[in-house]
Amino acid sequence: MSTRIESRWIDNMTFEAQVNGHSITIDADEAVGGRNLGPRPKPLMLVALAGCTGMDVISILGKMRIVPEYFNVAVEAEMTGEHPKTYEDIRIIYEFRGQDLPMDKLEKAVALSQEKYCGVSAMLIKATGIRHEIRILD
Amino acid sequence: MSTRIESRWIDNMTFEAQVNGHSITIDADEAVGGRNLGPRPKPLMLVALAGCTGMDVISILGKMRIVPEYFNVAVEAEMTGEHPKTYEDIRIIYEFRGQDLPMDKLEKAVALSQEKYCGVSAMLIKATGIRHEIRILD
Repeated sequence: MSTRIESRWIDNMTFEAQVNGHSITIDADEAVGGRNLGPRPKPLMLVALAGCTGMDVISILGKMRIVPEYFNVAVEAEMTGEHPKTYEDIRIIYEFRGQDLPMDKLEKAVALSQEKYCGVSAMLIKATGIRHEIRILD
Repeated sequence: MSTRIESRWIDNMTFEAQVNGHSITIDADEAVGGRNLGPRPKPLMLVALAGCTGMDVISILGKMRIVPEYFNVAVEAEMTGEHPKTYEDIRIIYEFRGQDLPMDKLEKAVALSQEKYCGVSAMLIKATGIRHEIRILD
């Protein structure tokens, strides 16, 4: 299956992307001459990662009849100092809140995503390490 | 430098990401139980690639005092059939329109982005091939 996205230059450092019928404005930071009209492009890789694995996990948990009250996926990474500036040491933090959440099943869902389903993880892990942790919040 | 993004589950397959102070809704396709309230996560990697190299190229061309009337970056990729579904054979198509655009300088700007500056390319190329072409439109 083919995928196609477009990103059209508006002016200055602003681009408007078309993806799955939705528009996303992307822009550079004000510190480098942009106007911050949208996110920087590079962190969108981390958003792709969080979304990909988040959808896997909520879907797998649903099949186990586990529905958290709150579920958040944070992704942190370090950016190298030299060009090309890339991410290294990516950490995914899965945060859950809910009644009697079984840690073993949360771990199972996360492992299935990271080891089997998440295509974004499978691509980024070729470039750098990806660690993850699961937190059950009070 | 550290980067952090978050993606909070809303309901169903819908997540809301926070990145550089901006919100992006991501959602699954209706065919797999989503509601298409936003783009799929995986193509956001291609948006990251288009935005990263697009900003490099427009910035490098600006230093050469070249300002196109129109500049669009399309990215196409094939998705593998087996889990984890990843992209392969990524193609970047740089489309320009403008008066007397010098192809050699467009090529120089694109080469600098692909070989030196674009961190998203530098990461994705560890996972799959990336080809590019430059088109000057009438």
